[in-house]
Amino acid sequence: MNFTRPHEECGVFGVYNHPEASNLTYLGLYALQHRGQESCGIVSSDGTSLHAHKRMGLVADVFGNQEVFKKLPGKSAIGHVRYSTAGASVEKNVQPIMVDYSRGSIAVAHNGNLVNAQLLKAELEAYGSIFQTTMDTEIIIHLLAISHTNSLVDRIVDALNRIKGAYCLLFLTETRMIAVRDPNGFRPLCLGRLGDAWVVASESCALDLIEAEFVREIEPGEMIVCTKDGNLKSLFPFKKVEPTPCIFEFVYFARPDSYIFGKNVYLARKELGRQLAREHGVDADIVIPVPDSGVPAAMGYAEESGISFEMGLIRNHYVGRTFIEPAQAIRHFGVKIKLNPVREILKGKRVVVIDDSIVRGTTSRKIVKMVRNAGAKEVHMRISSPPTSYPCYYGIDTPNRKELISSSHTLSEICRYITADSLGYLSEEGLVNSVGLENTGFCKACFAGTYPVAFPKPVLKPQMGLFGEEYSENE
Amino acid sequence: MNFTRPHEECGVFGVYNHPEASNLTYLGLYALQHRGQESCGIVSSDGTSLHAHKRMGLVADVFGNQEVFKKLPGKSAIGHVRYSTAGASVEKNVQPIMVDYSRGSIAVAHNGNLVNAQLLKAELEAYGSIFQTTMDTEIIIHLLAISHTNSLVDRIVDALNRIKGAYCLLFLTETRMIAVRDPNGFRPLCLGRLGDAWVVASESCALDLIEAEFVREIEPGEMIVCTKDGNLKSLFPFKKVEPTPCIFEFVYFARPDSYIFGKNVYLARKELGRQLAREHGVDADIVIPVPDSGVPAAMGYAEESGISFEMGLIRNHYVGRTFIEPAQAIRHFGVKIKLNPVREILKGKRVVVIDDSIVRGTTSRKIVKMVRNAGAKEVHMRISSPPTSYPCYYGIDTPNRKELISSSHTLSEICRYITADSLGYLSEEGLVNSVGLENTGFCKACFAGTYPVAFPKPVLKPQMGLFGEEYSENE
Amino acid sequence: MNFTRPHEECGVFGVYNHPEASNLTYLGLYALQHRGQESCGIVSSDGTSLHAHKRMGLVADVFGNQEVFKKLPGKSAIGHVRYSTAGASVEKNVQPIMVDYSRGSIAVAHNGNLVNAQLLKAELEAYGSIFQTTMDTEIIIHLLAISHTNSLVDRIVDALNRIKGAYCLLFLTETRMIAVRDPNGFRPLCLGRLGDAWVVASESCALDLIEAEFVREIEPGEMIVCTKDGNLKSLFPFKKVEPTPCIFEFVYFARPDSYIFGKNVYLARKELGRQLAREHGVDADIVIPVPDSGVPAAMGYAEESGISFEMGLIRNHYVGRTFIEPAQAIRHFGVKIKLNPVREILKGKRVVVIDDSIVRGTTSRKIVKMVRNAGAKEVHMRISSPPTSYPCYYGIDTPNRKELISSSHTLSEICRYITADSLGYLSEEGLVNSVGLENTGFCKACFAGTYPVAFPKPVLKPQMGLFGEEYSENE
Amino acid sequence: MNFTRPHEECGVFGVYNHPEASNLTYLGLYALQHRGQESCGIVSSDGTSLHAHKRMGLVADVFGNQEVFKKLPGKSAIGHVRYSTAGASVEKNVQPIMVDYSRGSIAVAHNGNLVNAQLLKAELEAYGSIFQTTMDTEIIIHLLAISHTNSLVDRIVDALNRIKGAYCLLFLTETRMIAVRDPNGFRPLCLGRLGDAWVVASESCALDLIEAEFVREIEPGEMIVCTKDGNLKSLFPFKKVEPTPCIFEFVYFARPDSYIFGKNVYLARKELGRQLAREHGVDADIVIPVPDSGVPAAMGYAEESGISFEMGLIRNHYVGRTFIEPAQAIRHFGVKIKLNPVREILKGKRVVVIDDSIVRGTTSRKIVKMVRNAGAKEVHMRISSPPTSYPCYYGIDTPNRKELISSSHTLSEICRYITADSLGYLSEEGLVNSVGLENTGFCKACFAGTYPVAFPKPVLKPQMGLFGEEYSENE
Repeated sequence: MNFTRPHEECGVFGVYNHPEASNLTYLGLYALQHRGQESCGIVSSDGTSLHAHKRMGLVADVFGNQEVFKKLPGKSAIGHVRYSTAGASVEKNVQPIMVDYSRGSIAVAHNGNLVNAQLLKAELEAYGSIFQTTMDTEIIIHLLAISHTNSLVDRIVDALNRIKGAYCLLFLTETRMIAVRDPNGFRPLCLGRLGDAWVVASESCALDLIEAEFVREIEPGEMIVCTKDGNLKSLFPFKKVEPTPCIFEFVYFARPDSYIFGKNVYLARKELGRQLAREHGVDADIVIPVPDSGVPAAMGYAEESGISFEMGLIRNHYVGRTFIEPAQAIRHFGVKIKLNPVREILKGKRVVVIDDSIVRGTTSRKIVKMVRNAGAKEVHMRISSPPTSYPCYYGIDTPNRKELISSSHTLSEICRYITADSLGYLSEEGLVNSVGLENTGFCKACFAGTYPVAFPKPVLKPQMGLFGEEYSENE
Repeated sequence: MNFTRPHEECGVFGVYNHPEASNLTYLGLYALQHRGQESCGIVSSDGTSLHAHKRMGLVADVFGNQEVFKKLPGKSAIGHVRYSTAGASVEKNVQPIMVDYSRGSIAVAHNGNLVNAQLLKAELEAYGSIFQTTMDTEIIIHLLAISHTNSLVDRIVDALNRIKGAYCLLFLTETRMIAVRDPNGFRPLCLGRLGDAWVVASESCALDLIEAEFVREIEPGEMIVCTKDGNLKSLFPFKKVEPTPCIFEFVYFARPDSYIFGKNVYLARKELGRQLAREHGVDADIVIPVPDSGVPAAMGYAEESGISFEMGLIRNHYVGRTFIEPAQAIRHFGVKIKLNPVREILKGKRVVVIDDSIVRGTTSRKIVKMVRNAGAKEVHMRISSPPTSYPCYYGIDTPNRKELISSSHTLSEICRYITADSLGYLSEEGLVNSVGLENTGFCKACFAGTYPVAFPKPVLKPQMGLFGEEYSENE
Repeated sequence: MNFTRPHEECGVFGVYNHPEASNLTYLGLYALQHRGQESCGIVSSDGTSLHAHKRMGLVADVFGNQEVFKKLPGKSAIGHVRYSTAGASVEKNVQPIMVDYSRGSIAVAHNGNLVNAQLLKAELEAYGSIFQTTMDTEIIIHLLAISHTNSLVDRIVDALNRIKGAYCLLFLTETRMIAVRDPNGFRPLCLGRLGDAWVVASESCALDLIEAEFVREIEPGEMIVCTKDGNLKSLFPFKKVEPTPCIFEFVYFARPDSYIFGKNVYLARKELGRQLAREHGVDADIVIPVPDSGVPAAMGYAEESGISFEMGLIRNHYVGRTFIEPAQAIRHFGVKIKLNPVREILKGKRVVVIDDSIVRGTTSRKIVKMVRNAGAKEVHMRISSPPTSYPCYYGIDTPNRKELISSSHTLSEICRYITADSLGYLSEEGLVNSVGLENTGFCKACFAGTYPVAFPKPVLKPQMGLFGEEYSENE
Repeated sequence: MNFTRPHEECGVFGVYNHPEASNLTYLGLYALQHRGQESCGIVSSDGTSLHAHKRMGLVADVFGNQEVFKKLPGKSAIGHVRYSTAGASVEKNVQPIMVDYSRGSIAVAHNGNLVNAQLLKAELEAYGSIFQTTMDTEIIIHLLAISHTNSLVDRIVDALNRIKGAYCLLFLTETRMIAVRDPNGFRPLCLGRLGDAWVVASESCALDLIEAEFVREIEPGEMIVCTKDGNLKSLFPFKKVEPTPCIFEFVYFARPDSYIFGKNVYLARKELGRQLAREHGVDADIVIPVPDSGVPAAMGYAEESGISFEMGLIRNHYVGRTFIEPAQAIRHFGVKIKLNPVREILKGKRVVVIDDSIVRGTTSRKIVKMVRNAGAKEVHMRISSPPTSYPCYYGIDTPNRKELISSSHTLSEICRYITADSLGYLSEEGLVNSVGLENTGFCKACFAGTYPVAFPKPVLKPQMGLFGEEYSENE
């Protein structure tokens, strides 16, 4: 039972001081479902004890029964949606984690990924800690529990000073809710207000659904403490570093109606498309997106280039995660079950296809072939982000480096592999400029391989392949 | 246990002579899921007997287990997806129906709605028939079973000559598959070819998914018989009438990538939007669709009018049918759970909202308010079909006449009710011309109240309210 | 989809005019669970329409949710528990059946088995009936529906005059409940009273659980009609025949605390054991039962013989119907999972083992070996019924004749096969005398092959093997 | 989230070195189901890692799917069945627990109860441990993980020297299985052999089912270590104390076919009945047991007294744990659903009812009334154990002292409360003598209040009510 590399995409949501806390948390998770479809959970506090319900499954299924909410009483609650790769995709890892420690009970929901998890775990085990999950989150609670400081806030600060990586954390005790965003601010986290209640969410779209007022984003390195008196305490207990929010939240991960890192996602995505048109114009008849994440960029590309925008690929909205593969070899099957081309639009046309990224290249190849089989005369692939050559260690699920096609292939090799007539990626500069955050840069690890939070050398258990072959990438 | 008015929207799919018949039928139903999300089923034939699996639930759930297919052996299969209103939404009504009768076993899948169901049922019961479901389909089998003719084809013809209404039917016996489209051709039905196998589907998108070749549409009044020798027999056994395909299949029901009634749906829908712009232009800043069905029309409207197209409302793609309503009154909740406005796009803008229809007006009202709350300066609602003033009796789920807002309110009343700044419906003429089918008209029952297939006077059991208050509508 | 031989063991229960009708029916079925563990169902009437809930599974599972009872409103209800052989063990066959016919709705629950089902089905199909289940019960409703008489009672009588075989039937309409026991009275059926309500149950133990007063048994050939005025009408509409209750209800099928055919089952069973001791005494140290049905007979044998009674085989009370067989060959596994010997009791002893019957002989063989392996010096098998040489066609699940070991083997051959030191069956005379019903005989079909209700020659579809090789048995 | 008093009844089973380890463990748990019906689990080892499957539910349900065993590979496995009171009856507490610690992975299954759990937990938390369950077992693993010794065996010894109470433990690591029985030997644990494999089980009936040879009982204070070389190491690492096995295992908890503490349970139970007859004879007509646990004692009573033994109460064998209570007040309902009297036996009789114990008195009261309502002239209650006046802290689920009727009421008060004509308990001396273990005494805590393993004063968190009002009982 070893740690698998837990590159998790997640969403967190919390409500403090509202009579319908767990019900609202359920709605908040529902709005954040796109951040994790594998499992979800809610822990509520009734003032004297914590209550949990968590399961593998979608939010609407896990909480699809009124009875569940009777078991989640109280005026405060935190919740979590999670996606993880197969290995660690097990029931025991469903968040939030809830434990007893010397000061009572505490629950934690975590969006992000630690880079020194293996080291910390080994150290904690050496001192006698036992681990019942394979999640980074459990490490944080161990650190908090062994802290020699007295107050809960100090313990959390103490613990977080030991960890490195990306994290948005929500802590819930019998009486308090605490939200923390890591100093680099990799992942988004925002604060809302609903009557007398405070709300914290990974994305603003979750505030919208429950009609909470968007107050502001929680800043990188900020800790927000909600206490019984109804006040909010804001702390900046960590060493200040240059923020490096994850640009991929804009490129494809966040919902288009969310406002993150000071921008609306939809508008940012459209601007990427415009810039892509400027950088990689082409003589064509129509621009089509790979739905749904490619839609705004394709609209931007179309507007800037003057080429007509069409929905040339239709998405089946009933696609779930479990699907029985047909026995026979249906061509491009994995893509077909999600997308179907509109022949009447594509036939005889020179088509620009807009997607947000190319990972292994296999999906792009299937899409290009599908569009061409539907009658397109030319297929020009345009990607609204730079080539992804390095894996992410801060919470986005990317494959090993050697599986990333752009880590080992040239542009023209990739173009040939995906059988496109031409291929263009948005430049790193174009990406950064068109999104144009004020006063801050971005994490460019996956494009440039420059990791803003260094991860430790694998001094321990080298035979276990700590971070495996990826490690050398950052050398 | 009386017949509720069974206005069912459905999809049918069948494969004849393919070693993976039930697996392919599963995929076909998956592609037709939008035509019915409530229940689904497959009956297969192994040459000597029929096998069934059917349940309440989505296709991916009901057939999400490899074991299921072991119970569906054989080279032929038919399947069905179904939506119905609450009353008749019960397990016993899940299709296909499978029965024993004097000549062996037969299974039937039915998309449509009979208008003389009550009369026929009463007559059959008077002669001693018993009914175990509340579906029209059971009536058809009774008629077939009591036919005095000899061959299966004759029995089917005999039975269908008794029924009136809309139907696309797939019959499966131990050795044959038979497809029939009613003389009016209300619902679409097409024929495909996959190697040596014949495939029949409600929409062509289902052929695409299994990579079957689209052969042609099955014509109104046509009966297709698939037999062991691999040949296909085409018959036209019914009295010929003027075809009246359902224009609402174009307006919103069919999938945009399907080809029905001789047209691609996406292109037809865009053309509706263009015509709508010509008929109801307005001085505005942006055009936004009510996703997903309104997207092509909004694109057409934008192209014709020159006003920018934007995705101002974002749809949550995890919306299922069961959803726990929050206890408190969240404003516009029913819409909120599906749609969220992008404030940054809408703020300060004069917005044209494109939707496909207005039924009760409550949803449109919520959408208009939502757009305005998000900051829109003006909200102009444009509908890509004429006012729906009459209920459909041919297979689309519409409420009673008195619930249809346009049956009792003027345009300006509706506009005021939905709180829009202006409201425009596509004209009937504009609709028909812009879709422009060759050699045929459309069923305009829901717009004009002229029902192409008359329904009988309620001579029987009048106390039961045969068709209730709707009956007089057609007088 | 042909009729398999549907030898079903079942239980029925009904309540008329009680505000908690479906809840009481649930409890009644619970008490009758031993009569059928495969599926169960309840249909209730609220005075204007019928409501059903039925499923595969045990009573406590199918009705283990308070929500279910909200869907079963009304003051009358009938229920059914059912066991059947694998072939027909499918959801569509779960009872009660509920149908619409010319006079409204009707539901039927049936315990028993018709002998002319195939003929009637063929005849009904020839006239155009369709069959959606493979149950005899459906035939009865068809006959009722086509009856030319007017009243419900007349229709039922009309239908039942056409059928031959064993039946206890409960009919429920919107306003009435009707109970019928066949003229031969094969299966038990009794009447109870709970306040103002009438209760009907297969066995009196079901009345006990709901604390209904036992009124009397319903007589062979009697029809009881419960109507709105609170009265009960008793009719004897069939030709009178000599009653032939099934003696196997006493031998093992009914619960020991039930009172049937004018006797308590436990006492009857003990008397069988006493008589067995008189007929087949043996010099031995202890008498042990095969639990649970063999317990009273073993107690009777011990009392009569003076040999000590011991519980030498312990039953695992968590045995369910589904059990994963271990891959390896554990000896006597099928029996081991249910029974474990107590070595300390059996060691060195001469043991008399009392069981109620021997069917194929395989189980007895395993039990004898198990007892001997536990250290018994001698094993004498005593059976509290005569050799079962002929299959039952009246509702008890017995295998084909050739699988019945006593149909083709002598006593000493059977004794040798089961590896016992001696074997003794209760004589037919001893059985009949010791049970000693007043004024009536018993059905002795399974012992003597004399079937009290003749079954028709297989004139129809002989190739289908109507009743297969068993047919000639009665010639 | 505080510790509720976790009085758990449990069973453990383990197999070392058998190709079908998890399958055999499943069967073993099945045979031990009576020791815990609430949840169950298996952890297997494939030599390099551990695999778990555990759930709320019965063994046959949780493991009722062949697929489960594919996820439990390897030649060693341990399993657990568990019952606990409502509070702690949650998924996170299902055993075995499986954790990572500094030396790898380890799983533990535990039958028993620690008396210094609260103190140890508080101490561990003070040093920074976190607790994810409310089970004593987690404390043991923490202690093991923080041990400063080196070998696994030393760590376990180190940990167990800190704990006080009752325990039978099974540990499984990647390569070893270790079984430990506490020095007092409260609970049974035995060793078996199946080919080359070692088997450990709570009761010998589990060895019987898988046809493992019974080798011997594991002795109080003994630790058995199974290692790869196939040998077994036996250690006695704890300070020797006088063994005090739990006499209630004989009285009602163990299965009658098991051999524990050097005796067969059935024979011991019969002897209790004989002694009860000697101590509390009565002039009566019949002796009846409260089934099933009372059966052997009633047989013993009948034999000794010469009064006839009868099964006057019939048990419904389909009783599960979840049961919907009927809305109306059915008399004695809780008992009725399990037991039904046989009127014909009881009517007019002077009846001796034999039960194994009286806890609150409510059930006995219902039984006496039920027997009397069935016509009994006199009802004499005889109990095959002394009055239970003190709660058990060593693993049997008993209520608080004040709920134990005999802690606050005299014999005649109890007799009057249960409405019996007379009441007699087996004397403590009679109990001990009639069971008659060689060389050892028994734990008499529940009768005499003398607790063989002292539990600590509540020095810590007194406000939490450590052991609540029970504490003073032992003063």
